Amino acid sequence: MSAEVTGERSFWGWGYDSEALSGRRLDELAGRVELLVDGESLELTTPPTVDEINLLRPRILPPARLAAWCSVDDRQRAAHTYGKSFRDIVRALERRWERPPDVVAMPPDEAGVTSVLDWANSVGAVVIPYGGGSSVVGGVEAPSDDDRPVISCDLSALDRVLEVDATSRAARIQGGVFGPSLEAQLRPFGLTLRHYPQSFEVSSLGGWLATRSGGHFATLHTHIDDFVESIRAVTPQGVWESRRLPGSGAGPAPDRLMLGSEGIFGVITEAWMRLLDRPRFRASGVARFASFEAGAIGARALVQSGLWPSNCRLLDATEALVTGAGDGGAHLLLVGFESADHPVDAQLARAAALVADHGGSFAVRESAPGSEGDAAERWRSAFLRAPYVRDGLVRLGLINETFETAITWDRFETFVADIRSTTGEALRSVGAWPGLVTCRLTHVYPDGAAPYFTVIAPGRRGDRLEQWATVKAAVMEAIARGGGTVTHHHSVGRDHRPGYDLERPDLFAAQLRAAKRVVDPHAMMNPGVLVDP
Amino acid sequence: MSAEVTGERSFWGWGYDSEALSGRRLDELAGRVELLVDGESLELTTPPTVDEINLLRPRILPPARLAAWCSVDDRQRAAHTYGKSFRDIVRALERRWERPPDVVAMPPDEAGVTSVLDWANSVGAVVIPYGGGSSVVGGVEAPSDDDRPVISCDLSALDRVLEVDATSRAARIQGGVFGPSLEAQLRPFGLTLRHYPQSFEVSSLGGWLATRSGGHFATLHTHIDDFVESIRAVTPQGVWESRRLPGSGAGPAPDRLMLGSEGIFGVITEAWMRLLDRPRFRASGVARFASFEAGAIGARALVQSGLWPSNCRLLDATEALVTGAGDGGAHLLLVGFESADHPVDAQLARAAALVADHGGSFAVRESAPGSEGDAAERWRSAFLRAPYVRDGLVRLGLINETFETAITWDRFETFVADIRSTTGEALRSVGAWPGLVTCRLTHVYPDGAAPYFTVIAPGRRGDRLEQWATVKAAVMEAIARGGGTVTHHHSVGRDHRPGYDLERPDLFAAQLRAAKRVVDPHAMMNPGVLVDP
Repeated sequence: MSAEVTGERSFWGWGYDSEALSGRRLDELAGRVELLVDGESLELTTPPTVDEINLLRPRILPPARLAAWCSVDDRQRAAHTYGKSFRDIVRALERRWERPPDVVAMPPDEAGVTSVLDWANSVGAVVIPYGGGSSVVGGVEAPSDDDRPVISCDLSALDRVLEVDATSRAARIQGGVFGPSLEAQLRPFGLTLRHYPQSFEVSSLGGWLATRSGGHFATLHTHIDDFVESIRAVTPQGVWESRRLPGSGAGPAPDRLMLGSEGIFGVITEAWMRLLDRPRFRASGVARFASFEAGAIGARALVQSGLWPSNCRLLDATEALVTGAGDGGAHLLLVGFESADHPVDAQLARAAALVADHGGSFAVRESAPGSEGDAAERWRSAFLRAPYVRDGLVRLGLINETFETAITWDRFETFVADIRSTTGEALRSVGAWPGLVTCRLTHVYPDGAAPYFTVIAPGRRGDRLEQWATVKAAVMEAIARGGGTVTHHHSVGRDHRPGYDLERPDLFAAQLRAAKRVVDPHAMMNPGVLVDP
Repeated sequence: MSAEVTGERSFWGWGYDSEALSGRRLDELAGRVELLVDGESLELTTPPTVDEINLLRPRILPPARLAAWCSVDDRQRAAHTYGKSFRDIVRALERRWERPPDVVAMPPDEAGVTSVLDWANSVGAVVIPYGGGSSVVGGVEAPSDDDRPVISCDLSALDRVLEVDATSRAARIQGGVFGPSLEAQLRPFGLTLRHYPQSFEVSSLGGWLATRSGGHFATLHTHIDDFVESIRAVTPQGVWESRRLPGSGAGPAPDRLMLGSEGIFGVITEAWMRLLDRPRFRASGVARFASFEAGAIGARALVQSGLWPSNCRLLDATEALVTGAGDGGAHLLLVGFESADHPVDAQLARAAALVADHGGSFAVRESAPGSEGDAAERWRSAFLRAPYVRDGLVRLGLINETFETAITWDRFETFVADIRSTTGEALRSVGAWPGLVTCRLTHVYPDGAAPYFTVIAPGRRGDRLEQWATVKAAVMEAIARGGGTVTHHHSVGRDHRPGYDLERPDLFAAQLRAAKRVVDPHAMMNPGVLVDP
């Protein structure tokens, strides 16, 4: 993937300070979005500085035995107040840190995690597990309706690959490790997890597991779930650890209850993960379609073929244009195959034929492997930069947010059309228009697809959170009405609770609540996420 | 698969009466196993007849509104007393039906299922969901430590494909449908579920889901789990229904809690299942290996290649001989590819090269497609006949049972060797020797394999259940000690509870118990399976 970025993490925005847009790049960005703001001048908000943070004093202080790795420093507390959604960035730019954690704990090891939970229990505090803090759904912020003190439990010191089993191609890995460090530790063994969510640089294995993140592969093994052999977590009632197995049919899969549990049971400290050999063979191409719907039918044919491309992402013409992947004159289907074992040119040739059968004009990779001239590479580069660009747009006063879902193919066309029009109407209704609503398919399945929408629209300074809340509520309602899911891979967090509550079986929610009570009887772990205490 | 068998189901043995071994075929079987019984004559037990069934009178009688589809008939009650394990067949041959269900309910529809649960609740009865009754783990028999009346809820009338969505290649299917009828109903649409457990003819979709059954595919999509879009079940607290989705990351997957729940939450009445186009292209071959361990390394290389063969089953030399797949002079790796979309000869060629790299001498399919001369076909035919042969062996006084597990590759060799020697020693210790202990790999994963063991050994009439109980306990202990799973695809049932309790996280068991209490507060659904009430 990309080289590991070092330097200081931003305490208010995405990723690393050194990577944020500034100077000429911000001016260029402003020029590109002028059309959206109807000639009004774009005013640039200055990011907050550490001096501007002025938090209420912490309500609790760590006991002496934990003090060495706990912080009540304003910068740390501010940095751990929010995730990194549009709403989070706006609040930070507005210098609003209303419910910061009282203490940021950074335990050095699993025993430290246990100490944090014990301490929290003894003082009646809430614990919020914190990996990379890249949540875009309010997954790491304090509950608004809970007066208990808050401890943000930052796992970033649990950052090691502990054991590699090259025979089984698996490794035991600590939950706090970030993507680049994880891959760097696996590289000497010729192995890779090959899980590349957009947040790869600033998200952790434990976070991926807790949120069922979606990764590199557009088909087949789309979520992190399928790469899990076993999970170890610390709960308020002790260690929860599943047996390491390649497969089992012994009762409901324990790991599948922990996957997606978003911190409500405890803190994921380790997992045995299935790995892959590093790919040696690649082949890719791009198909142009006259309509997004035709492109979706092409993608469907491809994913129903059993060829299992690693890349199979459909960009609508606007998204292709905005990301620089295309010229805006066509909808693009990016197709790629990869293998560590065998050439994949035959698979690409068959994919090209299938896509052509469905009206796609297919070109094998336009330029040399890995070159920036390649549409897929240009798109991927834009994809990884997008959150930094988002921060720039938000500083310029715009609304820029994404949301994603999944739907079966039979309902796909009407569903996507409904979401597009609902989003547009909602933006208009709050005065955030003209705006851009683009769509891509991030993952495709034999029985459906995961559409991902990006919104860029003019906002009213001081009013953008309310504007977006209206749009988001309308979208969640449309997704529920259309039979989609409130999230395919961003997770539920606090922001998606209304949609989630419409979606999961009521009896399952009651079961989840009961399962939580078993391991967390005082509802101290991320309370209010997924279920009410 | 095989043609649909019609006629009367056996009330004591496997499958259909018309398919049971008799006459000349039984004599031949006796001849083949004479070596095992050291020259002693084999006495053939006559199967029980309906007249010999003499059950205690039912403790409850169905109310008038359910009477039309409830039975208290001795034959029905006897037929629903046990599953179809070795232990079950022995007990039936010994005319022991000690805890028959009081009533066999065969509800005509989902409303009928609800009525059964309501009635059971009102009279304080236990309900045991019953699909095809092919459990080999005590999954459908009454608890021995529970005095409540028992209702066996037979779902076989819920046998229809309700809705087909050809665009998404999915169908809404009732839980009680058996394999052959399911495939027959899908055939007009050119679609197939392609799930072929050994019990295919006499097991149901709901049973497959409740037990996480393993099917046709030896790699990639090995369990039924991956083919599930959504599940609908009736619990004592009402309907539990998940949303139909191609993928989601919204919290822990609800379906994954229902999958493998073995009836402890309720009765699975419907599911939306992912289907496949019927395959048009096939290629297969067989590799001979000098040792089972070398064959396993070959299988590992193949499954780590990303080629995803549909068949990849390793038979040890004895199993190859016994099933007629081979001559006993080599261990066989059966390899097959299939596709509805594209030729798979290149994949087979690459598989052959990989296998040859690991010492396997590979021959492309020995004879014409589908011919009985093909090793894979001979093995599959023997595989489907095996339970009928088992019934014959049990009638002849032998012990014949199977057990299966899964283990990661790093521990594979020592684990399999330990299970083999443990099984042999245990058989010797109970005087059931000389015996055969064969092994095959039914499913293989990049990180491990699922070894499946078959035991044929001489038994002492009247003492075989105790003999086998000793062996089984030793095996379960060895599996736990070696880090395997108590079941890869046979499920837990009542027989595997001791091993299961060693394997699942204790806190998960507590969570499962809590989740059960939510939907089944009176512990009436299959009590004692997976967790104690």
